[in-house]
Amino acid sequence: MTASSSDPTSAHHHHPHDAPVPEGVAIPVLDTDPAFALHKGGKIELGITAPLRNRDDLSLAYTPGVARVCTAIAAFPQLADVYTWRANTVAVVTDGTAVLGLGDIGPAAALPVMEGKALLFKHFAGVDAVPICLDCTDVDELFETVVRLAPSFGGINLEDISAPRCFELEQRLQAALDIPVFHDDQHGTAIVVLAALRNAAKVTGRTLGDLRAVVSGAGAAGVAVTKILLAAGIGDIAVADSRGMLHSAREGLTDIKADLTGQTNQAGHAGTIEDALAGADVFLGLSAGKVPEDAVARMAPGALIFAMANPDPEIDPAIASKYAAVVATGRSDYPNQINNVLAFPGVFRGAFQSRARRITEGMKLAAADALAAVVGDDLAPDCVIPSVFDDRVAPAVAAAVAQAARVEGVARA
Amino acid sequence: MTASSSDPTSAHHHHPHDAPVPEGVAIPVLDTDPAFALHKGGKIELGITAPLRNRDDLSLAYTPGVARVCTAIAAFPQLADVYTWRANTVAVVTDGTAVLGLGDIGPAAALPVMEGKALLFKHFAGVDAVPICLDCTDVDELFETVVRLAPSFGGINLEDISAPRCFELEQRLQAALDIPVFHDDQHGTAIVVLAALRNAAKVTGRTLGDLRAVVSGAGAAGVAVTKILLAAGIGDIAVADSRGMLHSAREGLTDIKADLTGQTNQAGHAGTIEDALAGADVFLGLSAGKVPEDAVARMAPGALIFAMANPDPEIDPAIASKYAAVVATGRSDYPNQINNVLAFPGVFRGAFQSRARRITEGMKLAAADALAAVVGDDLAPDCVIPSVFDDRVAPAVAAAVAQAARVEGVARA
Repeated sequence: MTASSSDPTSAHHHHPHDAPVPEGVAIPVLDTDPAFALHKGGKIELGITAPLRNRDDLSLAYTPGVARVCTAIAAFPQLADVYTWRANTVAVVTDGTAVLGLGDIGPAAALPVMEGKALLFKHFAGVDAVPICLDCTDVDELFETVVRLAPSFGGINLEDISAPRCFELEQRLQAALDIPVFHDDQHGTAIVVLAALRNAAKVTGRTLGDLRAVVSGAGAAGVAVTKILLAAGIGDIAVADSRGMLHSAREGLTDIKADLTGQTNQAGHAGTIEDALAGADVFLGLSAGKVPEDAVARMAPGALIFAMANPDPEIDPAIASKYAAVVATGRSDYPNQINNVLAFPGVFRGAFQSRARRITEGMKLAAADALAAVVGDDLAPDCVIPSVFDDRVAPAVAAAVAQAARVEGVARA
Repeated sequence: MTASSSDPTSAHHHHPHDAPVPEGVAIPVLDTDPAFALHKGGKIELGITAPLRNRDDLSLAYTPGVARVCTAIAAFPQLADVYTWRANTVAVVTDGTAVLGLGDIGPAAALPVMEGKALLFKHFAGVDAVPICLDCTDVDELFETVVRLAPSFGGINLEDISAPRCFELEQRLQAALDIPVFHDDQHGTAIVVLAALRNAAKVTGRTLGDLRAVVSGAGAAGVAVTKILLAAGIGDIAVADSRGMLHSAREGLTDIKADLTGQTNQAGHAGTIEDALAGADVFLGLSAGKVPEDAVARMAPGALIFAMANPDPEIDPAIASKYAAVVATGRSDYPNQINNVLAFPGVFRGAFQSRARRITEGMKLAAADALAAVVGDDLAPDCVIPSVFDDRVAPAVAAAVAQAARVEGVARA
């Protein structure tokens, strides 16, 4: 781990993260797995951007000078966006119920992921992010807690909160708060999938309207991907959950799933996902459910296969490549990695640049278009999405999001 | 403002805090007051301590590597103190109801003070701190909100929450949580006052047991100062609120004030603070109530006057000096500045070093003793407390607090 401090004036640079492994705990992997070495003491720290060299500095940054700034903000609340870190700071909020593919591991165990998110926000887009892992799972409790926290933050990034609670929570928070609320598992994924699919269609000589897609998974990501593809004009899209295809005659659906049946599955597939895949142009894997090779073989010629489950794709990329024109996964060791980090840093950067009150559907579509456009002349079947280390991504996404915010009337700058 | 970034690898260093002053807002002082220039964009940022140079780094800090760390913490929750920033991170929590001398200005207007606190935590003791300004004031709501937040933090520093709610809130939180909960307005002040008073007694040839003190103010600071001086063996201490002296026959007292009457005011002063000051050795001003010169003149010879109201001391230091052997204030432009920053960074540093479950009375007394001892051979009537820029303070306080935590059986390391 590279330890560093951003304080240009401090005489003390403590790195005290020397808490021992608790007695009686023996995890052999701790000593040999480089992931544990990197995580020792965490991945983030507080940085200082004001000098503290002497009494004059102290009397400006703290009492008595700070009181004048407080008084001005009390009189003109918007000044908090100018004279604090708030306008550039996002709370990364989770309840630990749907962490990566690990499920409900609780708030403390979710913290490394939230720190990772904060690391990526800062590294890729200069956004300050604070991990907030909440010890409650009731939607009402989550809602009221985030509303109470909101005065310190310029935006709320919801993360790894299980469906269907995540849908209601995001909706209620955005209605209650005048700052962007963004559930990354939904919209970050949706933006990147749309960008990649747009390019995959282009490189195979088609448009989104030509495509019939099948989505595996009706959780946060599956629902959001379906909605953004509908908004972007996909030809048809059908969604499967663990019990088979969603269709209007199916009983016992949640409200969210029932809503989807009104806009999806024009062909009325009522069986398994394998049945629906016959003749389909696109497979979008957003669950861990495996798809057998014979079902892949029955897809339309020139299929587009996005098998995004991590670490084990729904369809082995080697098998997918036998039948598909474009293959994408969630993994970094194959071409076409679908990774949310291509979206969320630039989305919040753009929202903050425009001081947007919310992140609209138009802003998400603009983010996807900008992300797709970064590929440019490099477009190829094994290059439908930029590398996560492409420096052009976050600025391009940010500019598009900020511009869309202004067009949609939600910008304050 | 000195802008800096702690990220050693990022290609993007955005400093986007360019949100304009809202239209229609004209505050002439904004352009000329250096406090506003220093606060532009805030005083803190997120820092990065893990490298993100390439896919290998990303696969350790984020998926898939991070999942192994999450899994280990889910199995052994204490590992969150080893593999995240939590064990070194304090939430600086306020509801904005008692900010400096400004009163109830609300959570957003309190944010510059909380950022200042975070700046001081990091600068003086390497503690990572996060400002959390809550949009609620009911004790039950504050309590449940902080309990829900706690999994992300190694300690809770309560700040600028008005009395008497602050007493109940702190007590309930400490009972519910297994991490240090510290209301700085109470205990930070109490530690520094005790340290200075111990030295003031020493430099005038007395001990605490020789002294009869009068406290002006029965808010957070007045109550905590009274309690720590009782614990340290002060000869006698009497407390005044805005309606006069607290005594056992007075009616309509809050529970906290009624409790104090059982242990204070042995002489039974039942009138004004001016009456009680006649013959007293010590004045401790922890409110903004002015004390007339004739009352000061009636104090005992060689009096110790701590007039700590900011920016206007309860007794003008020039007048106090006519009668007193030692004069202290809260201001940086007079000798003997009583400033909480002498306490809270080292207290949390020591609590974190020892992985203390709480901050006990013994740890506070040890902090005060260590702080007093730093003065050493420099002890003089105009030097009863170290400078806030004395590099020895935080390490000395931290070491004493950590040692006391071990002695008192609340340490985990």
